[in-house]
Amino acid sequence: MKNNRKFQKKDEEAIKFEDQVEGRNAVLELLESNRDINKIYIADGEKHGSIHKIIALAKERKVILNEISRAKLNQMAQTENNQGVIAIVPPFDYCEIEDILETAKERNEKPFILILDGIEDPHNLGSIIRTAETAGVHGIIIPKRRACGVNSTVAKVSAGAVEYMKVARVNNINDAIEELKENDVWICGTDMEAKKYYNEEDYTGGIGIVIGSEGFGMSRLVKENCDFLVKIPMKGKITSLNASVSAGIVMYEVVKQRK
Amino acid sequence: MKNNRKFQKKDEEAIKFEDQVEGRNAVLELLESNRDINKIYIADGEKHGSIHKIIALAKERKVILNEISRAKLNQMAQTENNQGVIAIVPPFDYCEIEDILETAKERNEKPFILILDGIEDPHNLGSIIRTAETAGVHGIIIPKRRACGVNSTVAKVSAGAVEYMKVARVNNINDAIEELKENDVWICGTDMEAKKYYNEEDYTGGIGIVIGSEGFGMSRLVKENCDFLVKIPMKGKITSLNASVSAGIVMYEVVKQRK
Repeated sequence: MKNNRKFQKKDEEAIKFEDQVEGRNAVLELLESNRDINKIYIADGEKHGSIHKIIALAKERKVILNEISRAKLNQMAQTENNQGVIAIVPPFDYCEIEDILETAKERNEKPFILILDGIEDPHNLGSIIRTAETAGVHGIIIPKRRACGVNSTVAKVSAGAVEYMKVARVNNINDAIEELKENDVWICGTDMEAKKYYNEEDYTGGIGIVIGSEGFGMSRLVKENCDFLVKIPMKGKITSLNASVSAGIVMYEVVKQRK
Repeated sequence: MKNNRKFQKKDEEAIKFEDQVEGRNAVLELLESNRDINKIYIADGEKHGSIHKIIALAKERKVILNEISRAKLNQMAQTENNQGVIAIVPPFDYCEIEDILETAKERNEKPFILILDGIEDPHNLGSIIRTAETAGVHGIIIPKRRACGVNSTVAKVSAGAVEYMKVARVNNINDAIEELKENDVWICGTDMEAKKYYNEEDYTGGIGIVIGSEGFGMSRLVKENCDFLVKIPMKGKITSLNASVSAGIVMYEVVKQRK
């Protein structure tokens, strides 16, 4: 228990730590989006070029501007090239599984949920969130530990989709699967060793699609908890697809069947 | 003409420049693959840990080993962390369009070709090559200019698929499209403004799928040269997918129809 709490605390700190947006273009995009901004730091005496636009937009949006020394700014920075500007944003607002089920109800659709069992690469997570948003997924479930959370890299790669997508961050993926099953959601795992192809199953009812981690696929217990498993045909010598590509292929099979 | 030649030269140099593999894990993977290796440089006096495995494998494969000073190695390096080892590999062996058509003939299949109109991100190119290989694509056509070539990042992201995939690098995508059309290949462009969905067209004949660049999609002329255009349904607020994901979705529709 103690250990657990420690893990969780470390995790929360990591999240907080990651929520700053650095560089001129990234901060400009942020200012043009609807996302909340706590504060923007600008390097003292470096107000040339696009910094003027950042200042103007920040004033328009009534965001607090702080001028600090370049040395201090560099100390704060998490990336290599902050270009004299860092914005602080509130941590991503995770939801509960009920909120995802509620979204499905509001849209008058059977639940269409994605369960990510340990995606570690922020580029994959961002790309999956982007595809999920365009495919009309109601929400995504990710684990708290040993997986990438929604940080600013994920937000950027998602092309802004994080703002419209409900993401629940849970302690235990298997408990989440149980909760979904109690709500008439069928759990479909993607696994190379499945007997059926992804386009041979029916996704018109409530469905939760499980995507495994980049390196190891689904964990054993999660696989056992799936109602059925599907695979994507592999016609060449390479035996697996990138996680965000396979997620996209299966999600769009659901879209097609539900049209 | 002069200008053209200059461009081409610059391009070829860039390719040569990129063909070195750096870092212990990357070089180990390389040694375990079938790919040719010209030479391996190792930092003098740093032979600990996995370097011993690299040396053993290199000797087994009869690859020339050169010990040089760490300073010289760092000077050669293109990435930040070479970990004391750099392998030099021959540049990627591009093919001709005829070779791709020949591959289709050998497999007794109608041509299934991918045309990338300006993919710039090596991660996207690598991921597309990986998916193309698993989908049974016969070859990929990329332009020589304003696009990413097959370099070591692409090879890595492709999970080794570059070794099995034919890639033709052409001066002009529209000329390539003409050549394909003369060989009974229909050209299908992917475009948000298409009237039909990707799953409403027939891909059982010879087909070339065009994927546009990350930022701007297909160029105007390429779009005009397509026999037909298809789109992927977008059900959310985000209006486009990552290039490698949309390529994957369309490629697997072809796989499904041809089964």
